[in-house]
Amino acid sequence: MRAFLFSTAFVLASFAQSTALAEDKKPEPPAPSDIVAKAAVSDWQTLADEDLMVMTLDGGKTVVIWLAPWFAPEHISNIKIMTRNGFFNNSKILRVQDNYVTQWGRPDEDPIKPQNIKTGLPDEYDISTKTLKIKAFPYKDSYTPRAGYANHWPVVGAQKQVWLPHCYGMVAIGRDMPPDNGTGESLYAVIGHAPRHLDRNLTVVGRVVAGMENLSAWPRGTGALGFYENPEQRPTIVSVALASDLPESVRPHFKVLRTDTLTFDQWVKARANRVGGFFVTPMNGVDICNAMPPVAPL
Amino acid sequence: MRAFLFSTAFVLASFAQSTALAEDKKPEPPAPSDIVAKAAVSDWQTLADEDLMVMTLDGGKTVVIWLAPWFAPEHISNIKIMTRNGFFNNSKILRVQDNYVTQWGRPDEDPIKPQNIKTGLPDEYDISTKTLKIKAFPYKDSYTPRAGYANHWPVVGAQKQVWLPHCYGMVAIGRDMPPDNGTGESLYAVIGHAPRHLDRNLTVVGRVVAGMENLSAWPRGTGALGFYENPEQRPTIVSVALASDLPESVRPHFKVLRTDTLTFDQWVKARANRVGGFFVTPMNGVDICNAMPPVAPL
Repeated sequence: MRAFLFSTAFVLASFAQSTALAEDKKPEPPAPSDIVAKAAVSDWQTLADEDLMVMTLDGGKTVVIWLAPWFAPEHISNIKIMTRNGFFNNSKILRVQDNYVTQWGRPDEDPIKPQNIKTGLPDEYDISTKTLKIKAFPYKDSYTPRAGYANHWPVVGAQKQVWLPHCYGMVAIGRDMPPDNGTGESLYAVIGHAPRHLDRNLTVVGRVVAGMENLSAWPRGTGALGFYENPEQRPTIVSVALASDLPESVRPHFKVLRTDTLTFDQWVKARANRVGGFFVTPMNGVDICNAMPPVAPL
Repeated sequence: MRAFLFSTAFVLASFAQSTALAEDKKPEPPAPSDIVAKAAVSDWQTLADEDLMVMTLDGGKTVVIWLAPWFAPEHISNIKIMTRNGFFNNSKILRVQDNYVTQWGRPDEDPIKPQNIKTGLPDEYDISTKTLKIKAFPYKDSYTPRAGYANHWPVVGAQKQVWLPHCYGMVAIGRDMPPDNGTGESLYAVIGHAPRHLDRNLTVVGRVVAGMENLSAWPRGTGALGFYENPEQRPTIVSVALASDLPESVRPHFKVLRTDTLTFDQWVKARANRVGGFFVTPMNGVDICNAMPPVAPL
């Protein structure tokens, strides 16, 4: 007997839940992946090319990060300036701390410094809800009174302010001690159980939408906080470009499942209530970090 | 300027929070790691040697798993029988799925099958609270009405039943389609944001207390569900033994911070309220998976 473990988590594969037994009266409700697979064209929204940061690592591995300029415009302006200036070309992964973050940028000893960026930026840790249309998330958040979606991103917070949570795959800006809030020259991606204590303490700017395994599977650094102790251990980020600056022949395109659709509502409900097939008991709940809007290649 | 990111998460290092500014009137409250570093000898409990499973991987990498026989006695009895019979020696890591699980066991084609174990075991997905002393967790759980600690393990659930949650680093039993609940011959560890929809659907049996990076940092498998497509890609688990069966000269010893102590209460509160030094705004909350009782070498 092969003991195995099925999963549809974070997989946009069409893993049909076709295991309804003959004696079952009712057909099983669709699995989350079935709902995504059957979504209408109008349920999706194309991601803007100028908000996609394409990183190419050693060996041609790629990582695509979707930026959220509606949330952190000033810091993301800096990141785009540095990207276009080639600042991140031949930068390094400096730190990989298990169940925490992978962080990259240029090492201290690197003579290349960022040009034409703004420093002393205002904090962009949270955003006012005044002009933000928020779709409510129907389940509890462990950390805040309110969870939801804005612009097809997960948001958490309270009545007047919300922010992007530090979920697995979210990207944020490393910084020095406060009041410094960072320039954008060093970024990190979450590679563990959401370290939500960092929410509102560092500036979240994006979400990895492809190639997450090219950030999460590196050997963990053995120095304090997971820094690589030997410079030769640092993986190289060969080049970074905005998708809009790449020739169409190599430009990636992505779409997100719109959170203002019935399809999305059904998907969230299915994520919270896995039933049938492999599943024995539904949980009747789901964490916002396990209900990130599905993103897929266009 | 070096843009960096401090962290004390899951690090038992003595990272002193010594950055109080001269103009500050009050000393800063202690960081979680400070509280652990100053815990009294009586705040700790030694883990039983017979409940520690020591795995040695290729290249001498080790992983230590703390088993919870109070929660899943029948399945853990099987696991101990197989361990003592050498069933897991020269087994393989079969599957690494990003933000989900690392699973190991013997490949289908392996002629060695488990001996002397029980099959058709009763479900051990949850446990009655009747005879269980549960320490309440003072913050919300995204999935259940109740979170707490029992026997120094995290538990979640409701009034009458609780169970071990699928947090990062928790170990559980792979199985076939229900009503099969697995024999223990294939195990997996969580390597991503807690897939809590697996709670009560698979049997959680343990927690990785050392060497988690030796399970989480493998290249992700490129087959469906993260299975390695080529047998040669599978890392080897050279040997597995219970600590109690190892000679004292090589036997590891661990301790857990007792959840029934004031020190533990202070630690949970500090995890939920990071203040001072690097932190700008406390979250006033923490997820149970980010408040797993600290474990350290004895």
